[in-house]
Amino acid sequence: MDPLRLTDLHGSLADPVLAAMEFLNEVAHRYPEAVSFAPGRPYEEFFDVEDLHRYLRTFHRHLVEDQGMDAAGARRTLFQYGRTKGIIHDLIARNLAEDEAVHVDPESIVVTVGAQEAMLLVLRALRADPHDVLLAVSPVYVGITGAARLVEMPVLPVRDGPAGVDLDDLTAAARRARAAGLRPRALYVVPDFANPSGATLDRRLRSELLRVAADEDLLILEDNPYRLFGSTDDRPPTLKALGGDRVVSLGSYAKTGFPGARIGYAVADQPVDVGDGRTIPLADQLSRLKSMITVNTPPIAQAVIGGLLLEHGHSLVKANTREIEVYRRNREQVLDGLAARLPDAHRLGVRWNSPAGGFFIVVTVPFPVDDALLERSAREHRVLWTPMHHFYGDGTAMPHLRLSVSLLTPDEIDLGLDRLAEFITDHARQAGT
Amino acid sequence: MDPLRLTDLHGSLADPVLAAMEFLNEVAHRYPEAVSFAPGRPYEEFFDVEDLHRYLRTFHRHLVEDQGMDAAGARRTLFQYGRTKGIIHDLIARNLAEDEAVHVDPESIVVTVGAQEAMLLVLRALRADPHDVLLAVSPVYVGITGAARLVEMPVLPVRDGPAGVDLDDLTAAARRARAAGLRPRALYVVPDFANPSGATLDRRLRSELLRVAADEDLLILEDNPYRLFGSTDDRPPTLKALGGDRVVSLGSYAKTGFPGARIGYAVADQPVDVGDGRTIPLADQLSRLKSMITVNTPPIAQAVIGGLLLEHGHSLVKANTREIEVYRRNREQVLDGLAARLPDAHRLGVRWNSPAGGFFIVVTVPFPVDDALLERSAREHRVLWTPMHHFYGDGTAMPHLRLSVSLLTPDEIDLGLDRLAEFITDHARQAGT
Repeated sequence: MDPLRLTDLHGSLADPVLAAMEFLNEVAHRYPEAVSFAPGRPYEEFFDVEDLHRYLRTFHRHLVEDQGMDAAGARRTLFQYGRTKGIIHDLIARNLAEDEAVHVDPESIVVTVGAQEAMLLVLRALRADPHDVLLAVSPVYVGITGAARLVEMPVLPVRDGPAGVDLDDLTAAARRARAAGLRPRALYVVPDFANPSGATLDRRLRSELLRVAADEDLLILEDNPYRLFGSTDDRPPTLKALGGDRVVSLGSYAKTGFPGARIGYAVADQPVDVGDGRTIPLADQLSRLKSMITVNTPPIAQAVIGGLLLEHGHSLVKANTREIEVYRRNREQVLDGLAARLPDAHRLGVRWNSPAGGFFIVVTVPFPVDDALLERSAREHRVLWTPMHHFYGDGTAMPHLRLSVSLLTPDEIDLGLDRLAEFITDHARQAGT
Repeated sequence: MDPLRLTDLHGSLADPVLAAMEFLNEVAHRYPEAVSFAPGRPYEEFFDVEDLHRYLRTFHRHLVEDQGMDAAGARRTLFQYGRTKGIIHDLIARNLAEDEAVHVDPESIVVTVGAQEAMLLVLRALRADPHDVLLAVSPVYVGITGAARLVEMPVLPVRDGPAGVDLDDLTAAARRARAAGLRPRALYVVPDFANPSGATLDRRLRSELLRVAADEDLLILEDNPYRLFGSTDDRPPTLKALGGDRVVSLGSYAKTGFPGARIGYAVADQPVDVGDGRTIPLADQLSRLKSMITVNTPPIAQAVIGGLLLEHGHSLVKANTREIEVYRRNREQVLDGLAARLPDAHRLGVRWNSPAGGFFIVVTVPFPVDDALLERSAREHRVLWTPMHHFYGDGTAMPHLRLSVSLLTPDEIDLGLDRLAEFITDHARQAGT
């Protein structure tokens, strides 16, 4: 048949947001010998295939011994079509109670294929007509922007500012949208060690954010994949803990468990008035949508994450003691290594932030950073990173690049920093002349 | 916060198509002692938890021994973020070659979370603007209708007729749509043992269908979950085998493997003109969308289906010898059992079709069948089935009910048929008086 035309397919396919990830993967593929500070992937040295088998057996035993299933029932749970909202919702609820002192009805949890599906579900539900828009703290994770493109929901940026979110700008953005005839439905925010900014909202700002959200009648979509990867002694409460049903939690076990299970969830305990005086939880509406997207999340994948939770007393803090230490070590090595290799950073116009947790560090440089420059960095300096413009979505070069510290070993970090310092110094000097 | 209003959420949530499955599940839940001819679930007596472990080990060995990965690479493949289009695309291509003599480039395959995600991907790509519509042979599987609702793509019915699709009605529907300013993009069809009608297109009709599709510039979306469950000696070729890139194959391992893996796929080798003279396969566009829906299909779930394919020489026919026999036996038991229990069917105005394969039999009765009647059947006769109106999408009662024969044991079928015959006889007599 004649070729289809891209212009006859959905507009999201021509969107730079959807193309960005492919470009970044493709560059990495072409320069396999480059050291990569690009991907936000978890550390992989601790992965062990035997764990998969053990987690599966642990979860199977849980079905029989704790849930009282007979052998046929346990088999059916793993092999057959099943509950659309998932089979480890109770374990997730216990995980939230254990690690976050957040107490939710397991029935308000929808287990999803990664947090990505949870984002799509919530945006699909909230985007009722073309007037509905999403607010998002900018710079922003491309997954939420991409999901919004798929449901044709505009995303209006809110400035992050030094504290993580600029509340005046939030209020102004919401009111500007309403004045333009739009209906802002929710604010997407990553309150702890955000991707890409590394910013964390302090406790007071969290409370003020919730107050503004109430004033402006916005839901908060709280995404929090990196929260555990900092000091666990002084974490402020989650927005969900503080805000109750003002907040939809978007959860992910990709970093605290492993990405290959693709298990995420939404906690959606918001009441929905379905007429005739009845309310049902938003989770049940998301479930209805999910039945037309993935039917249910693969029980086998749920089972391995279930087993992991069971083996660690439902605590991901306990399950990640080694990883938390690796990420702390890597962050310090990168921060110390940048300082050691760029002693004249200030004079060169180079600086970087120092997040207390998470995977990401942002380096500001005295030259514009675009995809062509990443290509040169890969070719000439054999080091990869992520141009920050991808997190703003408009393709305009910005003087920032994101370093991810999660995946590399100490030797790789040292080698990569040598190359990165050389790249930055060369280009900063050219920019200065 | 104040309750959200259903009317402020996406319109699909108020659609009877999305509510239908919940209602049917809920009735089954309330009458656990009823024999159920309702769910289209595969037979589950052969499921064995140890198979999951063995499939996983088989696939892991394949990564190391056949693909030459080192231990770290194999671990990474199972645990990390991975290729958006999947990791068993080559095995799926070999499966299609082995069972169907269909030869496709593995790069044109996108592994999905069930065929449901494949449907959503294809419809999202094709629905570029509000003029784009889908044609679907009616009665139709609710999953495609639901996916279409999520992307706001109208579904226009095409009559099935006794042969499985009425080509005159297809042409008329396409032209009527164009005359109304709409753009029909594709026809959704299940050519073998369709759900719910049981109909199979013969070889000649398949060729004629492809000719009409070419004349009307329609893609064919071929969904074929039940194809293997008939005689394997005289199967006509798939539409994909006959139609090449006119056809997008929507694949599912839910019935030929097991539903708990949630593995499906799309074969989308259609060229897409992306401007500047280049074409790339539609699969790559679907991949771009998938990265914003589920990121990738859980590698663990892909691995168990990969292991199953490897252990059976890439043939699902070989993997399903026992199941094919069970479904044949069950179909015959239901057909013979109906005849034995309803000797005066003709006089009562009751009849049924006799599909040569698949899971479903349609019974026509001399009274309208709605959800309230299903409820009575469950309560008074302790037998469940599916009202056919759910597959037409408009909620109007029709004089048909669907029996699924796949899940039950011989004893359950006998008991269920006793109850069903009583229910039908009672209501047919009331209708006749």
